[in-house]
Amino acid sequence: MQQQVLVDMDGVLADVYQQFINKEFELTGEYLDIKSMHGILESEAFPHFESIVRSEGFFRTVPQIPDSIEGLKYLNDKYKVLIVSSATEFPTSLKEKVDWLGEFYPFISWRQIILCGQKDSIKGDIMIDDHPKNLNFFDGKKIIFTQPHNVFHNEPEWQRIDGWKQIIDIL
Amino acid sequence: MQQQVLVDMDGVLADVYQQFINKEFELTGEYLDIKSMHGILESEAFPHFESIVRSEGFFRTVPQIPDSIEGLKYLNDKYKVLIVSSATEFPTSLKEKVDWLGEFYPFISWRQIILCGQKDSIKGDIMIDDHPKNLNFFDGKKIIFTQPHNVFHNEPEWQRIDGWKQIIDIL
Repeated sequence: MQQQVLVDMDGVLADVYQQFINKEFELTGEYLDIKSMHGILESEAFPHFESIVRSEGFFRTVPQIPDSIEGLKYLNDKYKVLIVSSATEFPTSLKEKVDWLGEFYPFISWRQIILCGQKDSIKGDIMIDDHPKNLNFFDGKKIIFTQPHNVFHNEPEWQRIDGWKQIIDIL
Repeated sequence: MQQQVLVDMDGVLADVYQQFINKEFELTGEYLDIKSMHGILESEAFPHFESIVRSEGFFRTVPQIPDSIEGLKYLNDKYKVLIVSSATEFPTSLKEKVDWLGEFYPFISWRQIILCGQKDSIKGDIMIDDHPKNLNFFDGKKIIFTQPHNVFHNEPEWQRIDGWKQIIDIL
């Protein structure tokens, strides 16, 4: 039987850091330096986090992480893929996320999308996520996708990858 | 540890039959008789199913199943409750469902909501659902909530209930 891979959206498919940087620039004229954000959460790194993340269009227009389209296509051909996104905290994001996946990853069906509050009740064999809180409650193979907030956090049972090309190498 | 109960929305919390009947009446002036719908799916029972189910406001204004507010509150105090709804096929429904839950079942947090395509990857100990396709793939206790489409379908491992008062009796 095919293994089931749970793929996160924000920070794995969706380049939310770039989108936050763009939106902060629109608001303030200041272009924030991603290097200053190592080891702190997005909500601490971006001064206008709350209003930006809840603004209409934020998730619909987020850029894709480099190589994620080819990478996800590769996974989808080889594994049973589920896209699992913590999203119910932000109701406006829900339709935007489904529409965004439909536009940029059209090989993913609505049957493969899970929008939830917490990920600890989703079954899978492999999880690709940038947030330790999600990996910590998962009982399969744990792959941490490098993002500024997690660079200093490593656990023995995590495999760290820095981009989608590496996913193709290891899975 | 508390058992986890997966509670369906449409047909268990949300009275979608009544909402379809109301919307068909608005469209055609004809008030369809629910007794004629026994044993057939909603998509076959309602002539304008596709356009109605995708129309704005359908899920936001659906009536609640009788006694579901008290019943869900009872479950939520006693068990770990997750609301699990097949919804990603209908992107417009997603925010409406979260907003509707927030209005009528405010004791349910966004952390307890899962909107998905299929329910076969959600962990739980007890499932309350009106659709056999969801119960069939579940490996815990299966409770079928009576709705017109399922009245002729029984399986040895299902427990049938006809309303929320019975849920309080058995759980």
